[in-house]
Amino acid sequence: MPSIPSTSTTSVWQYLARLLVLTLLPFYAHALSHEELMTLQPIPNVKEHGIGIYVYEGMNAMDALGPMQVFSTAGLQPFIVGKTAGAIKASNGLSINVQKSFADVPQLDILVVPGGALETIMQTQDTEVINWILEINKKSVYTSSVCTGAWILGTAGLLKGRYATSNWWRAAEILKKFRAIPQPYKRYVFDGKIVTSAGVTAGIDMALAIVQRLYSHDGNGGKDFTQAVMLDLQYDPHAPVRGGNPAKTDPFVFEAMKEMYDMFLYDWFKLLPPIPK
Amino acid sequence: MPSIPSTSTTSVWQYLARLLVLTLLPFYAHALSHEELMTLQPIPNVKEHGIGIYVYEGMNAMDALGPMQVFSTAGLQPFIVGKTAGAIKASNGLSINVQKSFADVPQLDILVVPGGALETIMQTQDTEVINWILEINKKSVYTSSVCTGAWILGTAGLLKGRYATSNWWRAAEILKKFRAIPQPYKRYVFDGKIVTSAGVTAGIDMALAIVQRLYSHDGNGGKDFTQAVMLDLQYDPHAPVRGGNPAKTDPFVFEAMKEMYDMFLYDWFKLLPPIPK
Repeated sequence: MPSIPSTSTTSVWQYLARLLVLTLLPFYAHALSHEELMTLQPIPNVKEHGIGIYVYEGMNAMDALGPMQVFSTAGLQPFIVGKTAGAIKASNGLSINVQKSFADVPQLDILVVPGGALETIMQTQDTEVINWILEINKKSVYTSSVCTGAWILGTAGLLKGRYATSNWWRAAEILKKFRAIPQPYKRYVFDGKIVTSAGVTAGIDMALAIVQRLYSHDGNGGKDFTQAVMLDLQYDPHAPVRGGNPAKTDPFVFEAMKEMYDMFLYDWFKLLPPIPK
Repeated sequence: MPSIPSTSTTSVWQYLARLLVLTLLPFYAHALSHEELMTLQPIPNVKEHGIGIYVYEGMNAMDALGPMQVFSTAGLQPFIVGKTAGAIKASNGLSINVQKSFADVPQLDILVVPGGALETIMQTQDTEVINWILEINKKSVYTSSVCTGAWILGTAGLLKGRYATSNWWRAAEILKKFRAIPQPYKRYVFDGKIVTSAGVTAGIDMALAIVQRLYSHDGNGGKDFTQAVMLDLQYDPHAPVRGGNPAKTDPFVFEAMKEMYDMFLYDWFKLLPPIPK
């Protein structure tokens, strides 16, 4: 077994202790005492009430599961929360089993609300969902959204007067409807405890930024631990073509995509009542 | 409703027809005739036998679900394949329901094999899994792996004499064990029909590269459709810190991570018998 490098000025052992949580925990959790487990917990302790990944029928799977993977790789043990127990089917056909229902989850340290299309608009009209999110937000460390999940937070009134982003489609117009200060096309935006991200894959970057903030007391602004998580995910993206946001996309491709969303979503969107001042 | 731009030299309507598949299909599929559906199919037709995302207990969830999201956003309707029917739990606790079992899937156009840690080594010892993969590979358009999923393809002998990558941990050494020509840290590698990718998130890039190849007959090398998919995923990654591969990672962070994997995986790995010449 190669030896731990002894020239480190920061504590390699400290990393190792934390990194144990990354992948070892699922295998060795049974062998650790409660106290040993506690020393592995992040500070601030977001495991007390936990990180809930909210899921609903028709949501975009990666909106939810990108952040879930980042948080779990960081050892933060996120779980899937649904309105009720059972399986939900994402827009891509993926069937996911709910781990905890609203009734099981009166409080969370971090909430992630994914987006989608028509089903996300339907979520904004579900008062049980909106009320649960408002209740969770009262005591959360972070309340976050990915992609059009911002429409749900917006309907709940949580974006009022706040800087916020969402997926690219009519971002400024839609965010204004929720009385947010639009930051269209920004990858993610922190405004107090409300964190919003751009479309789908931006949830990965947002979750990494949250991890960095959770570990920002480490003397290096959380950079080292975030790097460890990124290495574990080998998160050094390199798409085969340039693209991924409107400015980097061929104007005709952009226009076609915008038309498509206009065609099947815009009329629905316009039906939503404005949120109160 | 804004009008379709008329100055396009490529067919915006062609994009629209294809892009219908992206998100409209789940809602409107019932309203389309079989013939109409056929015109929406990609060429080459990878929907005939479909795209199977193989899942197993303890796999890394994003290894499987990253490519699944890319393919579904591209309208290619991938599905989840497991050894048997039922639910499987990924290493991050995510519980996924198998859509088709080995018995239902004698052939696939594209197979994606995700990685993991100890459970992935266990997969290499499951002859039923290896034999099914070999059978699928006989007629597939692409047989692919994400992260340590390469260990499974390698054990099946599918990397022999082929250029291949895998996740960063001891990549060259491990790939050599499978008689591959190691391309360590490469984001993804095509060698004939065998496609391998680096760790976890590299599966997203690999799937985009496959999509681009499937659409490479469009006169623009598949770039426009890939851009459309990337815009839908808003795939313009921007991590909060530099990192994600060994060269971009602080040496102490890298060393700590390598030590961790050495500590709990290396002895297991060394136990694997060499594959025959």
